[in-house]
Amino acid sequence: MSGHQPGRHFLQIPGPTNIPGAVLAALAKPTIDHRSDEFGQLGLEVLSNLQRIFKTNKPVFMFPSSATGAWEAALTNVLNPGDSILIYDTGYFASQWRHLATNLGFNVEVIESDWHTPVNAARLTEQLINDRNQHIKAVCIVHNETSTGVTSDVAKVRRAIDDVRHPALLLVDTVSSLASIDYQHDEWQVDVSVGGSQKGLMLPPGLSFNAVSDRALKCHANSQFPKSYWNWGEMLSHNKKGFFPYTPATNLIFGLQESLKLILDEIGLQNVFNRHARHAAATREAVRHWGLQMVCQDPTAFSSTVTAVMTPANGSANQLRQIILSKFDMSLGTGLGKFNDRVFRIGHLGDLNDLSLAGTLSGIEMGLKICSFSFREGGVSKALDYLVRAD
Amino acid sequence: MSGHQPGRHFLQIPGPTNIPGAVLAALAKPTIDHRSDEFGQLGLEVLSNLQRIFKTNKPVFMFPSSATGAWEAALTNVLNPGDSILIYDTGYFASQWRHLATNLGFNVEVIESDWHTPVNAARLTEQLINDRNQHIKAVCIVHNETSTGVTSDVAKVRRAIDDVRHPALLLVDTVSSLASIDYQHDEWQVDVSVGGSQKGLMLPPGLSFNAVSDRALKCHANSQFPKSYWNWGEMLSHNKKGFFPYTPATNLIFGLQESLKLILDEIGLQNVFNRHARHAAATREAVRHWGLQMVCQDPTAFSSTVTAVMTPANGSANQLRQIILSKFDMSLGTGLGKFNDRVFRIGHLGDLNDLSLAGTLSGIEMGLKICSFSFREGGVSKALDYLVRAD
Repeated sequence: MSGHQPGRHFLQIPGPTNIPGAVLAALAKPTIDHRSDEFGQLGLEVLSNLQRIFKTNKPVFMFPSSATGAWEAALTNVLNPGDSILIYDTGYFASQWRHLATNLGFNVEVIESDWHTPVNAARLTEQLINDRNQHIKAVCIVHNETSTGVTSDVAKVRRAIDDVRHPALLLVDTVSSLASIDYQHDEWQVDVSVGGSQKGLMLPPGLSFNAVSDRALKCHANSQFPKSYWNWGEMLSHNKKGFFPYTPATNLIFGLQESLKLILDEIGLQNVFNRHARHAAATREAVRHWGLQMVCQDPTAFSSTVTAVMTPANGSANQLRQIILSKFDMSLGTGLGKFNDRVFRIGHLGDLNDLSLAGTLSGIEMGLKICSFSFREGGVSKALDYLVRAD
Repeated sequence: MSGHQPGRHFLQIPGPTNIPGAVLAALAKPTIDHRSDEFGQLGLEVLSNLQRIFKTNKPVFMFPSSATGAWEAALTNVLNPGDSILIYDTGYFASQWRHLATNLGFNVEVIESDWHTPVNAARLTEQLINDRNQHIKAVCIVHNETSTGVTSDVAKVRRAIDDVRHPALLLVDTVSSLASIDYQHDEWQVDVSVGGSQKGLMLPPGLSFNAVSDRALKCHANSQFPKSYWNWGEMLSHNKKGFFPYTPATNLIFGLQESLKLILDEIGLQNVFNRHARHAAATREAVRHWGLQMVCQDPTAFSSTVTAVMTPANGSANQLRQIILSKFDMSLGTGLGKFNDRVFRIGHLGDLNDLSLAGTLSGIEMGLKICSFSFREGGVSKALDYLVRAD
């Protein structure tokens, strides 16, 4: 294979996502002084627009880090050393959050699942009722499991906690749903939301976010957990004028300024959600026609940003992905954890349009054929029919 | 419609074409002094690599102009005022060349055609035999007619001229074939070849080229046609050290340096030709399945860079193109001249891969459906079958 592949690489992993030209251009602007008035204006604009993205009137904190850092920030700002938390293990990313919490010395209780279904509120209720002494300080869930393509109902989880009058905070990972699937931090009474730059926000990785509640800020004030980089306190006072307590990732913030303008003002957040839902539905039309099984087994929980697909009996998902990469220059998501080699994931989020989705599904259909997998041809046609119908 | 369209625009006109990221990055480099040693090195490298593209050992001249300028350069350097030339009118661009030659005061004889077929060597022979006093100083043809998707056989045209021992020069427009369809300036004994930057070379418009023969240089030495900007003479002496007699388009030359490296060294010119032929064949599979007629009625003359398609009876090609643009953010070529509103043109040249071609054909299939044109669905599937088969 030659060094240069002709045409655009199809980056159809479920994030990092494709970046619009206008955002790439913004990323390439000359770096400015992060203590200047110009930067202060930029900081204020971006922090204010992030509130519109999270649908919150409370502060949004922004870190120069990957989203994993914002998980750590969420935990270390509201908890005390050795606190107990409850993690609902809906997939690989929920299990990674659990791993991180364990590393930090928290006492982690886990509700295990089969990774095919969303958070089951009844199981959560049961666990919280059993926690008679209310040791559990926080419930941690993933809104959209990037590893499985399963979206959980956050409002329902909040009600499940409230209904049993449990005081646990609700911490939610919205990394692969933010700015792609509707997310309402205030309305759903989430205490800490965790986001990242490299998915719906159409940026490279490198920025992460915490949206917070008043209760989370109170817990922060009482937290004795040792922290500095992730500390909301210093961040809050600097943010008031658009600045940061340490050097921010200036050029990513240039890009963020541009992508927030595109999403909020030029496209419109609801239009972004509708587009993602439409592309996901078209993708499922193709998958169903192919006769392949989706990882998500609950039709109410299909993700609008990623569709995880089981290969036909004994087919190697890694072989399929490798062939599609080498023949068609498209990256699909790998099967994570226990789904390794059994699952491939189609990312249909970020800066994507109908024709790139059609190209994506075409690459998969050709790959299935080259691998001689057992499937029914014509899934792409079904997806095109849907796109025309669901205009 | 919102100001920002999500995803990448599909620029599927037959040029300007999509530009690779590495070339865009090169175009954005800081401009340098065009009299510096650094520029001289750049100029020498680029002029030498252009010879490899044209397959010539003779000089290649480069102008800061659109390709239309290189037509004018070709005529004004080898002809004298009022000379007679013969133009074979294979389509809109041949007829535009005729228009330009007439503007310059040349006596233009024309072989008319139906715009559905390539240059017919027998008709050319007949015309040259009838030119008993050998008034015709040059025969002008278009290698690949961008308006019709018809490619002519240049070597056969040369033989037709030579066989009747006519001294006319052969001037060839290779604008939409260069670096996409095999072109052999020396081997085919072309006297002046005319090229541009915005097609197979994957650059923005703004650079044009003349490849020349020894005979063309001799004619240049005897030409009394008034010219300055287009004058090969001054250009030749400056080019020896990689410079130009007036300010060159420095940043386009940065881009050209990069695209020539990609084409010649990373991808390989023959691989580029093969890819274009494969994409054109896949496109024809779709068009045939749809039941639509191609403008090109000679199967030996199908273009590898553009496929021009007639809409079904009375269908408006402009309406189809408009719907595809507004719904799917894809630009297709308009029907030119007498084909206006009856023909749409699919550009499949430049920096294109299988999945973007699949997206392109998907957009057309959906557009045909939305327009309720009479056609058979499933053309995209046929194209995918071909791509898998013709790996």
